[in-house]
Amino acid sequence: MITITFPDGKTKQYEAGVTALDIAKSISEGLARNVLSAKVTPLSFGKGAGGEVWDAIRPIKEDAKILFLTWKDEEGKSTMWHSSAHLFAEALEFFYPGVKFGIGPPVENGFYYDVDLGEKTISSEDFKKIEDKMLELARQKNPYVRKEISKKDAIDFFQKKGDEYKLELLNELQDGQITFYEQGNFTDLCRGPHIPNTGFIKSVKLMNIAGAYWRGDESKKQLTRIYGVTFPSQKELEEHIAMLEEAKKRDHRKLGKELKIFTFNDDVGPGLPLWLPNGATMIEQLETLAKTAEEKAGYKRVRTPHLAKENMYKTSGHLPYYAESMFPPMDMDGEKYYLKAMNCPHHHKIFEALTPSYRDLPLRLAEYGTCYRYEQSGELFGLMRVRSLQMNDAHIYCTKEQFADEFRAVNDMYLKYFKIFGIEKYVMRFSTHSPDKLGKKYVDEPTLWLETEDMVRKVLIESKIPYKEVADEGAFYGPKIDVQVWSAIGREFTLATNQVDFAVPKRFGLTYISNQNKSETPICIHRAPLGTHERFIGFLTEHYAGNFPVWLAAEQVTILPISDKFNDYAKNILTLLKKYYIRASFDDRSEKIGKKIRDAEMMKVPYMLIIGEKEVAVNAVSVRKHGEGDIGSVNAEEFAKKIKQEVDSVMQFDF
Amino acid sequence: MITITFPDGKTKQYEAGVTALDIAKSISEGLARNVLSAKVTPLSFGKGAGGEVWDAIRPIKEDAKILFLTWKDEEGKSTMWHSSAHLFAEALEFFYPGVKFGIGPPVENGFYYDVDLGEKTISSEDFKKIEDKMLELARQKNPYVRKEISKKDAIDFFQKKGDEYKLELLNELQDGQITFYEQGNFTDLCRGPHIPNTGFIKSVKLMNIAGAYWRGDESKKQLTRIYGVTFPSQKELEEHIAMLEEAKKRDHRKLGKELKIFTFNDDVGPGLPLWLPNGATMIEQLETLAKTAEEKAGYKRVRTPHLAKENMYKTSGHLPYYAESMFPPMDMDGEKYYLKAMNCPHHHKIFEALTPSYRDLPLRLAEYGTCYRYEQSGELFGLMRVRSLQMNDAHIYCTKEQFADEFRAVNDMYLKYFKIFGIEKYVMRFSTHSPDKLGKKYVDEPTLWLETEDMVRKVLIESKIPYKEVADEGAFYGPKIDVQVWSAIGREFTLATNQVDFAVPKRFGLTYISNQNKSETPICIHRAPLGTHERFIGFLTEHYAGNFPVWLAAEQVTILPISDKFNDYAKNILTLLKKYYIRASFDDRSEKIGKKIRDAEMMKVPYMLIIGEKEVAVNAVSVRKHGEGDIGSVNAEEFAKKIKQEVDSVMQFDF
Repeated sequence: MITITFPDGKTKQYEAGVTALDIAKSISEGLARNVLSAKVTPLSFGKGAGGEVWDAIRPIKEDAKILFLTWKDEEGKSTMWHSSAHLFAEALEFFYPGVKFGIGPPVENGFYYDVDLGEKTISSEDFKKIEDKMLELARQKNPYVRKEISKKDAIDFFQKKGDEYKLELLNELQDGQITFYEQGNFTDLCRGPHIPNTGFIKSVKLMNIAGAYWRGDESKKQLTRIYGVTFPSQKELEEHIAMLEEAKKRDHRKLGKELKIFTFNDDVGPGLPLWLPNGATMIEQLETLAKTAEEKAGYKRVRTPHLAKENMYKTSGHLPYYAESMFPPMDMDGEKYYLKAMNCPHHHKIFEALTPSYRDLPLRLAEYGTCYRYEQSGELFGLMRVRSLQMNDAHIYCTKEQFADEFRAVNDMYLKYFKIFGIEKYVMRFSTHSPDKLGKKYVDEPTLWLETEDMVRKVLIESKIPYKEVADEGAFYGPKIDVQVWSAIGREFTLATNQVDFAVPKRFGLTYISNQNKSETPICIHRAPLGTHERFIGFLTEHYAGNFPVWLAAEQVTILPISDKFNDYAKNILTLLKKYYIRASFDDRSEKIGKKIRDAEMMKVPYMLIIGEKEVAVNAVSVRKHGEGDIGSVNAEEFAKKIKQEVDSVMQFDF
Repeated sequence: MITITFPDGKTKQYEAGVTALDIAKSISEGLARNVLSAKVTPLSFGKGAGGEVWDAIRPIKEDAKILFLTWKDEEGKSTMWHSSAHLFAEALEFFYPGVKFGIGPPVENGFYYDVDLGEKTISSEDFKKIEDKMLELARQKNPYVRKEISKKDAIDFFQKKGDEYKLELLNELQDGQITFYEQGNFTDLCRGPHIPNTGFIKSVKLMNIAGAYWRGDESKKQLTRIYGVTFPSQKELEEHIAMLEEAKKRDHRKLGKELKIFTFNDDVGPGLPLWLPNGATMIEQLETLAKTAEEKAGYKRVRTPHLAKENMYKTSGHLPYYAESMFPPMDMDGEKYYLKAMNCPHHHKIFEALTPSYRDLPLRLAEYGTCYRYEQSGELFGLMRVRSLQMNDAHIYCTKEQFADEFRAVNDMYLKYFKIFGIEKYVMRFSTHSPDKLGKKYVDEPTLWLETEDMVRKVLIESKIPYKEVADEGAFYGPKIDVQVWSAIGREFTLATNQVDFAVPKRFGLTYISNQNKSETPICIHRAPLGTHERFIGFLTEHYAGNFPVWLAAEQVTILPISDKFNDYAKNILTLLKKYYIRASFDDRSEKIGKKIRDAEMMKVPYMLIIGEKEVAVNAVSVRKHGEGDIGSVNAEEFAKKIKQEVDSVMQFDF
């Protein structure tokens, strides 16, 4: 008998060789129907180890911890999409005998498989028949069978099959570590894990076709990459497709161009957005909001240059390890200078210059610092993956006693922002260390790790913030929280990161004089609730579908006179609005009012003020709200006051 | 007879060989007494040539334009200080026979001479006797006599004298272009010009001694550099010394450290200031002011990255010519990237992306962009010469018809800023082109140059702005205005530059659609009224002696309870002040009130609120103004309102 330990710490005895699926069945049939795979941590992995995702039908032979994975878990989804790639391969092989296979992993939204069709071709017109075949095979509920195989036998198999790609992959594997997975008529070289059988896959959609060089190497053969996605129900597929269609309409690259928010330029460089006036205005509003929030929360602003000498990044530990993500150095006066990829080292130097005492702590140093990070040009994507990052950054230096309060205040600020931006779904992904990697992946301070993680966990629980804990994904210098939010159409974004740092202040020799008149090292909290302007505005564009709330909109109001006769009146209205600091414009073109309205609607200006004879006569404006139409006539000054109030209600939000 | 043309265009006939001094005498004896040198432009220099500064007693042999130079002119001052260097050399030689001379030029505030004293030494204790000797020689009114001399004879002279430094300099000169200047017992190799005689020098002060490598080359011998300054009256010398003493007390490096405004750090790099919270707060106030002013003036904000590909700077013409002033390149993805040394090319790309029509002009793009410029580390000086520059930048794109209005509006903005900052003395230094250098130093657009210069001149005259015109100092692409201001203690600073650019937009292919539906190239005005934060805050620190006005001060108010008993009341006052967005602190240390006041006075906090029994009893605060002392007791809310009003009166200044 072996002992299985569940996440809640409870244990139960089973025969050795029991599977996760068996265990699930022993609990309830309903659970068993949903188990796609399981995170298993056998005793032999060692104390504090992180576990592995296993097939739900893989035998467990010794004492182990177990966590069932279902469609609700990232890793459960990932297992199903991995299995779906195999199912797709089986269907493809049916129509394209002799097809050769590269790699076929699960990805963020489904899976892909890179294939070599030889002389044959494939187009989206072929998708339907392949999807149907996949569903037919799925209904057969063929089990995914894991087989350990010798390197020799594996090579024999793919030599017979004539698949040079798999042979190349095999070549790099060690004998004794090779496994095959079989389902129905298809066998693949694969490490797994997989779902119990194909029956879990209830709906299938092949998405698109792209070219992809074998192993990402332009000198190698271009294969055909086919993307697909599957779901455990037809309904979920339909929702997914609807969401994708909506996301396409809300694509921040498309709207960013239409609404003149940002642009790229070849002479400036990829991944380096230029913010057009509309985008820069939005940035200014976000900064005003953040600066007000931070001022109220007792932060102090600082400004630091965008580069520093190599030595600083050696002290911080970013060099040489992080060098690949930094911009290349500049050689100046016989020294290497690097653009900053993060603001913390500069802030540490400011902490040092301020020679603080315990009376000055917590010291919260905030900066909208622009950092530069190198990303492969192929990885760049609109505003979501860029090389220049304007970060809502701050570093909080505090004592151990102050940590919980400070960390709680940081979380509270997040929650207030979520409210302002109407973000209803969010999760804090809490990454901890792994004790067996202390001194390697993690700074070797076992007690500090446990203490800090406990403090963080306690605050998360007390604040009732939805969070999920992930072992072995902390930063080098402390536990980390990634803030994941969902846009209005349900797409997930990672917006921000908080980190607790109990190691780098020491490396920088940062100290404060304690109330015992001793020299102590502070803890540092890294936080950036609004992430970067780039990613945040990218997210907001999708979230609001470009219909930004009035406080954030670059242009808040546009005045549309019905004819040139009313231009003087319109001009007076403009002056009035400006007095209230409203960002307004006045369309004095000799165009028909219909055209003026259409253009303003296209630019998604929140309010249009229509001016005609009637309005002039009663000294009013006829208000049209974007997307809603006419909302009635009102005195111009009252309108201005209302808008100002709407803006102030956000900007003077109670932080 | 030759014709002499005066600056007002009037002409007069003189004998050939007449001197500027003769001409001055022919006008008035009073003028003659003040003429130090003259800018002479002989007819043979060619049409539009810029002229040369000549000795006032140098014969003029052909038709020429003439401009008398006196102590009021930079070049007049420079002439006198150059002559003073010779006078110093004569006095030095008297006490140190055999001394050898390097170079002895006029500089910003006087002159220096680099000398080789051989085995002998000099200290500031020797200054008095040398000064006395200089004054004795000055009273002799020895003329400065210009002599053309052959290279051979010149070499003979310095070989006999045994001065290898002058021989080295001579070696590089061409025969026929060599002149000596003699006064009293001293002869120097010198191009001139000089004042008529030593009698113009009425007061003398030797300032200090430094080491200086011969020709600035560390591998060569170190000479002794002695700095001095002279004036046409004793009173002016006394004023100058008083000003220097005051400037020392107001030194922005000293105050910057004491008031915790900025710091430098070796690991970050020289010339790269880190702005501490107090400095960053001041920056935020300046930016708020500028952004409000620019918003009201119809500017649109943009944001651009801090770097771009090499190609952009080739297009702009900065590379390769300006490469030495730029940071070294970064090699990335097989391309060279440069940190931006100016924002214009990025703004041009934004102009391009906006594809404007005449309806969008003038288009005023503003950015607080941080630029990076390389300065030799020896040239760096506090905030005044740095490598990172946060610039109050904007580029105005307009039609030729709009130019005058736009340029006038830019000047008006300057004048408003001068008022806000209490800058009473300022001059716009208007640099024009030189027709003979068209196509070389200046873009070859003769008509555009004249037209634009005329437009600029007209606006300057109409606006009654003090300005001075300087030929042959324009930018490559158009005329330029350097804004020179004087601090409260009379020191001169160059704060900002405006440039008119009719060439680079064309190089970038920038066009707008005119109302005739044609593609036209806009004119671009570069302007930065507040210069850079670095230089401006350096200037303001001296200007205000660190006693920043309340709207700008990092800490506006500090609350000082007389004893701990009043801490709760003080805390309430703090909350009240924060409600009014006042930057206030609360000194809750258990220190005596005298100590608290001294500390607050040291930090130059504009207002101190003293809280004792009396204040609590009547719900008031006792106000103490920095540098002025007690100004009476007042209701706390009234005080807060008054401060807010004081701040708003600046921030909402009528722009």
